[in-house]
Amino acid sequence: MTPPAVILVRPQLAENIGMCARAMMNFGLSEMRLVSPRDGWPKKGARQASSGASAVLDNAKLFETTEEAIADLNYVFATTARERGQMKDIFAADEGAQKMQALAGEDARSGILFGPERMGLSNDDVALADAIISFPVSPAFTSINLAQAVLLVGYEWWKLISGGKAPIAPTRTSPPATREHMLAFFDYVEKELDAVSFFYPPEKREVMVRNFRNIWHRLEMTEQDVQTMRGAVASLVGARQGTRFKRD
Amino acid sequence: MTPPAVILVRPQLAENIGMCARAMMNFGLSEMRLVSPRDGWPKKGARQASSGASAVLDNAKLFETTEEAIADLNYVFATTARERGQMKDIFAADEGAQKMQALAGEDARSGILFGPERMGLSNDDVALADAIISFPVSPAFTSINLAQAVLLVGYEWWKLISGGKAPIAPTRTSPPATREHMLAFFDYVEKELDAVSFFYPPEKREVMVRNFRNIWHRLEMTEQDVQTMRGAVASLVGARQGTRFKRD
Repeated sequence: MTPPAVILVRPQLAENIGMCARAMMNFGLSEMRLVSPRDGWPKKGARQASSGASAVLDNAKLFETTEEAIADLNYVFATTARERGQMKDIFAADEGAQKMQALAGEDARSGILFGPERMGLSNDDVALADAIISFPVSPAFTSINLAQAVLLVGYEWWKLISGGKAPIAPTRTSPPATREHMLAFFDYVEKELDAVSFFYPPEKREVMVRNFRNIWHRLEMTEQDVQTMRGAVASLVGARQGTRFKRD
Repeated sequence: MTPPAVILVRPQLAENIGMCARAMMNFGLSEMRLVSPRDGWPKKGARQASSGASAVLDNAKLFETTEEAIADLNYVFATTARERGQMKDIFAADEGAQKMQALAGEDARSGILFGPERMGLSNDDVALADAIISFPVSPAFTSINLAQAVLLVGYEWWKLISGGKAPIAPTRTSPPATREHMLAFFDYVEKELDAVSFFYPPEKREVMVRNFRNIWHRLEMTEQDVQTMRGAVASLVGARQGTRFKRD
């Protein structure tokens, strides 16, 4: 399954090209195409800004025109924040990623056009595309920089094809406590609390105990939690020291 | 409904703080908190890098410790790429945004901790949080820069509260063509094509016509499309007037 190609049309700063390469590698994209970079190619400054994503830069393909850059593709997206007056399908980034995934599944090759930093894609560039991708942003501040646009598209692509879950697993060092151990814990703690008349007055005891147990239930205690809390209570009670106080 | 606060813990470069402010404004976040910025605050370089998002910088609150920065919040997320050995809930960015939205709906105030550029949050910082947010990234290249992390969280937040659709509306300059106009168009074009024996041989004509009409159906033609195509056909036929060939 071939991921989409990232096509930078007339990019201006080498540093931004490098940052795009990095954003691509964060999200499993590796094919970069450059259309007529303003300052030529290769260009120093891109490599350093790529923060280790130089493989993408080394394999980037150079083209003179957008037409040539997309010639072998089956479907092309154009990213833009501005309405262009052209009748094209418009996708948010996640919808675009779904389309890319479907195309990849059919062995169709897709590419995404990103325009020059200052002015974005020309209307002629947009006309070459099959569809537009536009990012949902606050109308108060719509400007996203080039590498960030590549990042957002890559992010939605990776979420789809990887399943989109957080990459770190929760730490589970102890299994959930058995019901038996929970009840034994409750019995112990409540006994000690009764010894100091915590659940007072007596007519409210039943409700107070229920509320008290509900706190511990919400915790979803592990075996270790039960042991820790039991030990804390035992220390507080100072059972071994025999220093108990009872409210009259 | 109060959006979450973005808390930069011991951020290093003023330029990155500025880029975070910009990323925040892209996605409707306005409350920035700074914990002990390495080079002090305010700091030149932040403003320019914010590309117009200086309102966020001007309103940023300064704190000496992470504890102080989160004191008034009801729920805190810590962003990290590394497993920390602490038993905490772990959310991908979109799941975290759902939690933030739910909290905001309950009038609970949430905040997200982002660590220093080079080393990320300390284990003590993470310990202060209620839950972890970790971004789904390619294991080949997990490092996302500070402003990009803020961008991704903001992006998922904005998608949720705005509905997440592309912010530009499709251009629809002409309504869909009526069935009557479509059929009249088909009759006209097929008449002209029959005149040059396009649907040949006769025994295949029915299938060829059906396939031909299906192309136009897939187009979902507007009234304008029909007029344009009809005019194109008329021009082509008119140019050949007097030069018609019939296959025997």
